[in-house]
Amino acid sequence: MAVKIVRFEEKKGIYSWAYVKEGVAYPCLESFDRLDGFLKIVDQGKIDPKHFSPSGMPVNSLRISSPISSPCQIICQGKNYLDHKKETGVSLKSSHKNILFTKAPSSIASAYDALSVPQGVSLLDYEIELGLLIGKPIKKELLSDVDPLDYIAGVFIANDVSARDIQVPHRQWFRGKSYRGFCPLGPYLVLLEKNEKEWIYDLNLELKVNGSIRQKSSTSLMLHEPRATLREISEIFDLYPGDILLTGTPGGVAMRVAPKSFWQKISKLWVDEDQVFSDFIEQQKLSDRYLKEGDIVEAKIYSDRLDLGEQKFRISAK
Amino acid sequence: MAVKIVRFEEKKGIYSWAYVKEGVAYPCLESFDRLDGFLKIVDQGKIDPKHFSPSGMPVNSLRISSPISSPCQIICQGKNYLDHKKETGVSLKSSHKNILFTKAPSSIASAYDALSVPQGVSLLDYEIELGLLIGKPIKKELLSDVDPLDYIAGVFIANDVSARDIQVPHRQWFRGKSYRGFCPLGPYLVLLEKNEKEWIYDLNLELKVNGSIRQKSSTSLMLHEPRATLREISEIFDLYPGDILLTGTPGGVAMRVAPKSFWQKISKLWVDEDQVFSDFIEQQKLSDRYLKEGDIVEAKIYSDRLDLGEQKFRISAK
Repeated sequence: MAVKIVRFEEKKGIYSWAYVKEGVAYPCLESFDRLDGFLKIVDQGKIDPKHFSPSGMPVNSLRISSPISSPCQIICQGKNYLDHKKETGVSLKSSHKNILFTKAPSSIASAYDALSVPQGVSLLDYEIELGLLIGKPIKKELLSDVDPLDYIAGVFIANDVSARDIQVPHRQWFRGKSYRGFCPLGPYLVLLEKNEKEWIYDLNLELKVNGSIRQKSSTSLMLHEPRATLREISEIFDLYPGDILLTGTPGGVAMRVAPKSFWQKISKLWVDEDQVFSDFIEQQKLSDRYLKEGDIVEAKIYSDRLDLGEQKFRISAK
Repeated sequence: MAVKIVRFEEKKGIYSWAYVKEGVAYPCLESFDRLDGFLKIVDQGKIDPKHFSPSGMPVNSLRISSPISSPCQIICQGKNYLDHKKETGVSLKSSHKNILFTKAPSSIASAYDALSVPQGVSLLDYEIELGLLIGKPIKKELLSDVDPLDYIAGVFIANDVSARDIQVPHRQWFRGKSYRGFCPLGPYLVLLEKNEKEWIYDLNLELKVNGSIRQKSSTSLMLHEPRATLREISEIFDLYPGDILLTGTPGGVAMRVAPKSFWQKISKLWVDEDQVFSDFIEQQKLSDRYLKEGDIVEAKIYSDRLDLGEQKFRISAK
C-alpha cells in the first residue's frame, strides 16, 4: 500500500521524517540528515513499524517541510505536454525533443511556505508537475531487461516556479527557475510498491490560483514518459538516491506567447534584442495571470488509487 | 604560497588527496570521501604539515583523478568572452547577459582520462575554462562589505566538453554538456591565500589539439568577472563547499556559426526545425576542427605567478 511520508521541523533546525496514516504522523525513531539515509529503512514502498514511534501526532499540528532534502540533483523535462508547448509559441512542426535542464537545489521549499517575489522579478509563473524520487543509483545505461520504474522510490507534487522575465531573455532556463523558494515540493512523498508504480501514468494534475482552475491535465498526456526518460538519462549521466526528476508541466501557465509577435522578432539578429525582450516583458505585464502579492496557489495530484495531497501557498511581498 | 593539491587512486576505489611540492606528492593522513571534508583541514590556502605524510612519492607515479569530488554543483557561465560569443553567431548588438547553466556532476573526469565519444554524438567540441572552487557556503546575498573572493578556496583547469549536435537542437545546453567524461578537471587544485586570489584576473588560457593552438586568451577578458558573478549568484541560489564555478570559454572552439546561414533560418517558425538542425549538423561535419578518435587535447592555465598544470587527454573510440 502506497505510504505517505512527511518531513517536519521537530525543533528549530532539527528535521524528522514520519509516515502518515489517517491524518496521524508517526515519526521515525532514527535521525537522518538526508533523504537517501531515510530511504535505506524503507524497502520498495514498505515500511517496518519498528523504525517508527508507535505514538503519533496529528499531521496538521506539524511544521511541514519539503519531504525531499537539499542538496540533490533536480532534473527537469521541458515542454513535455503538447498544450504547454503550444502556448509557449514554439514550432509544433518538428519532432518532440526530450529537453532536460536543472534547477538549483536551494530552490526547494515546502508545500505551504509563502513564496516571496524576488527583487527584480516581475513575471512570476507557476508550473504544476509530477515529481519522481530516485531510490537507487543509476550509474550506467539501463539494460533492456531492467524496468526503469524499479529506480523510482516515490512520487510527489512539484511546482516549477519560474521568473519569465529572467528565463526568456537569458534563453538558458536555469537562472530564472533557481531562485530560493522556486521549487515547492510535497506535502507528501508517496512511496510506491512495485505493483503500484504503473499508477503514475494516469494521475490527474490540477492547479488553482485564487480558487480558479488554471491547469488541469493528466500524466497520461506526457510526450516523453518516465520509463523512456530514465532510460535516456541513464545513457548520459548518473542519478543518485535522493535526486528528483520533474516531468514537465501541462498547459495553462500564466505566460502566453503568440509566435508572430515575439519569436519572429528575436529571430532577426539585426534587431536590438534588448528592446524586443523589454517589449515582451511590458506586454506580458498587461496579463492578469501572473502571480502577485496575496495570490493563493493550490495544487493537487490524484487518481482513484493515489492521492499526493495538496500544496497551498501564498505569494508574499518582495 | 599557492599550494598544489592532487587526488589520486591509492587502491582500487580508494582515493586520497595530497599536496605537491617540487614534483613530489605528500598524501593526507586522514581519509575523506568528499572534497568539502578535505577542505576543513586547509585554512585559507595554508596547509598544516601535521595532516600529511612526511614521506612523499613522485607525482607522476600516481594514478591521478579529478581533484574535485562528485556529486557537487557545476555552475557554468555561458558566452563570457566576446570572441567566443561572436563565433557562435549570435547578436552582439545587445547587452551581455551573465548566462548561467549547469553540467551533471557525473561528467567530471581527470585531466588525463581518455575521453570516449558517446554513442550518437558526432560534433565533439572542447572549451578551456578557469574553474573556481567554492570553499565556504553562500546561503544568502553577499553584502557589499564582503569580498566574494573570500568564498573561493582554489582554482583549476576545466574543459567544458560539449556535443554540439545535441546541445544546439535541444536549445537547453545541459544535456549536450553532461555526458560522462565531459568535464575533465585538474590535474591540480591550486589553493590560494587571501592575497593571491586577485591573480585569477590575469591568467593565460591555452588549448591545443594535436599540437596546434586552438584557444589562447586571458581571464582578464571575461565579460562577467568572478566577484560580480558570485554576488549575482548569491542573490539567487546557494553554493556549498565543494561546488564549482566554470567561468566560460574564450574564442577558438570547433563550432563556427555564420548567423545568416543558421540562426535566421531556425528563427522562422514555419520552417521544418528538424531539417534546419539536420542541415546544420551536416554542414558542421565538414569542418576538420571537431575532435575525433586519436586526437590529443592539451590545456594549460598559467601566469608568471601561478601555474595550474596541464591537462592532456586522448579521444578514444565510441
